[in-house]
Amino acid sequence: VVAWSSGNHAQGVAAAAKLLGIPATIVMPADAPSIKLENTRALGAEVVLYNRLAESREKIARELANTRGAVLVPSFDDPFIIAGQGTIGLEIVDQAAQAQAKVTQILVCCGGGGLIAGIATAIKASAPDINLYAVEPAGFDDTTRSLIAGKRETVGPNAGSICDALLTPSPGELTFPINQRLLSGGLVVTDDQVRAAMRFAFAKMKLVIEPGGAVALAALLAGIAPAAGKDGDTVVVVSGANVDPTLYAEIISSLR
Amino acid sequence: VVAWSSGNHAQGVAAAAKLLGIPATIVMPADAPSIKLENTRALGAEVVLYNRLAESREKIARELANTRGAVLVPSFDDPFIIAGQGTIGLEIVDQAAQAQAKVTQILVCCGGGGLIAGIATAIKASAPDINLYAVEPAGFDDTTRSLIAGKRETVGPNAGSICDALLTPSPGELTFPINQRLLSGGLVVTDDQVRAAMRFAFAKMKLVIEPGGAVALAALLAGIAPAAGKDGDTVVVVSGANVDPTLYAEIISSLR
Repeated sequence: VVAWSSGNHAQGVAAAAKLLGIPATIVMPADAPSIKLENTRALGAEVVLYNRLAESREKIARELANTRGAVLVPSFDDPFIIAGQGTIGLEIVDQAAQAQAKVTQILVCCGGGGLIAGIATAIKASAPDINLYAVEPAGFDDTTRSLIAGKRETVGPNAGSICDALLTPSPGELTFPINQRLLSGGLVVTDDQVRAAMRFAFAKMKLVIEPGGAVALAALLAGIAPAAGKDGDTVVVVSGANVDPTLYAEIISSLR
Repeated sequence: VVAWSSGNHAQGVAAAAKLLGIPATIVMPADAPSIKLENTRALGAEVVLYNRLAESREKIARELANTRGAVLVPSFDDPFIIAGQGTIGLEIVDQAAQAQAKVTQILVCCGGGGLIAGIATAIKASAPDINLYAVEPAGFDDTTRSLIAGKRETVGPNAGSICDALLTPSPGELTFPINQRLLSGGLVVTDDQVRAAMRFAFAKMKLVIEPGGAVALAALLAGIAPAAGKDGDTVVVVSGANVDPTLYAEIISSLR
């Protein structure tokens, strides 16, 4: 298999390929966190680096797949990937029932939109009244802008963010129509709000979360999410914990 | 209620008192991690500081309890505390059955020995063949020494360790006879082995663990625990994640 990924999908594909005993090649940004590069290689995958600002990872991956006769496993714009990630929606339904929670809204981190498209599909099938919001880092709010504009918008590659997993320039061809139909909107958080959420998770939840995995929690803590109301519960999806120790150390011991 | 604690029991007692709407006073070492002092106060408890090397926390707490007519809640040497912590043993039995694991040994962090005495009581009642080991930091191996000597031994207060939760000088009056009857022995880990376990938990398990909570994992990773054998599983109890961000940052970004 050949895949492209900023690092989390990379590890999932590498782990699945290892289980199946087949070779995996993953196209990853040269500036991906070391922990993501190391963990992907440790799972036996070959890593091909590219320049995130100058090259197309899809193009590199397609050429590799053609040359090697391998199957492409995209990181979000694929019906099977969307369906697989949608199982998180089924888990939310199960766990909310167990906790006797009355869920009125769900906040999900959003890069290309595959995770939230899958979750929204699963949720809306059984609970059409629950509102879902895509949460993105400032500068990479392509899904938020696209939902407002009613068509796929692209953000420039010039902005920076500590949320390395969410630096997608535009919503997917498959994911956007799903999200346009099912989401209530997008929310945008700053890097400082993300840092505060990571510190909260460290001090109160005892969980390591990477920046891109913390955006939904950040939106809730920063008061950006719509109020859930007195008898409503908000679900926050936390996904991804592959953060380099140096950056994590800096964030948890800083005040901003 | 009045309790004494290095900080984890403190938070448990403070939270329980808050739920019941009764005042709580906790005697804590002046050199306890700030996060433990802050979290205990945030739960509404009054914190009374003492000098760990020169004063007796039990004596201070007993005097406070007498003066105020309050109930004492010791951190380990109490039948109810031992029984309550023993519910972790019941959870291990349940979860091992669900995971179809064949548990042959269980490693548990040990300060005064209440946690492992409770777990051992619960485990041995249904699975007498499982071996339990108390894991302690070097310099505070009072339970390990006592198990070898066959009587309660006391270690000097001069040794230091990053495992602030486990700096107990001697096994409890109630806990030691239980542990003497039920444990297979004690294991001792160095601070550097604890640091390595904390880094492992950060990078691979995505869990924040405090030094004292990581000793059992450290014993397993350092190869100090007896080999579980080909068809046996080892259970490690990880308990406690109240570590100051500055110390945690230093540990995860260091190599030693």
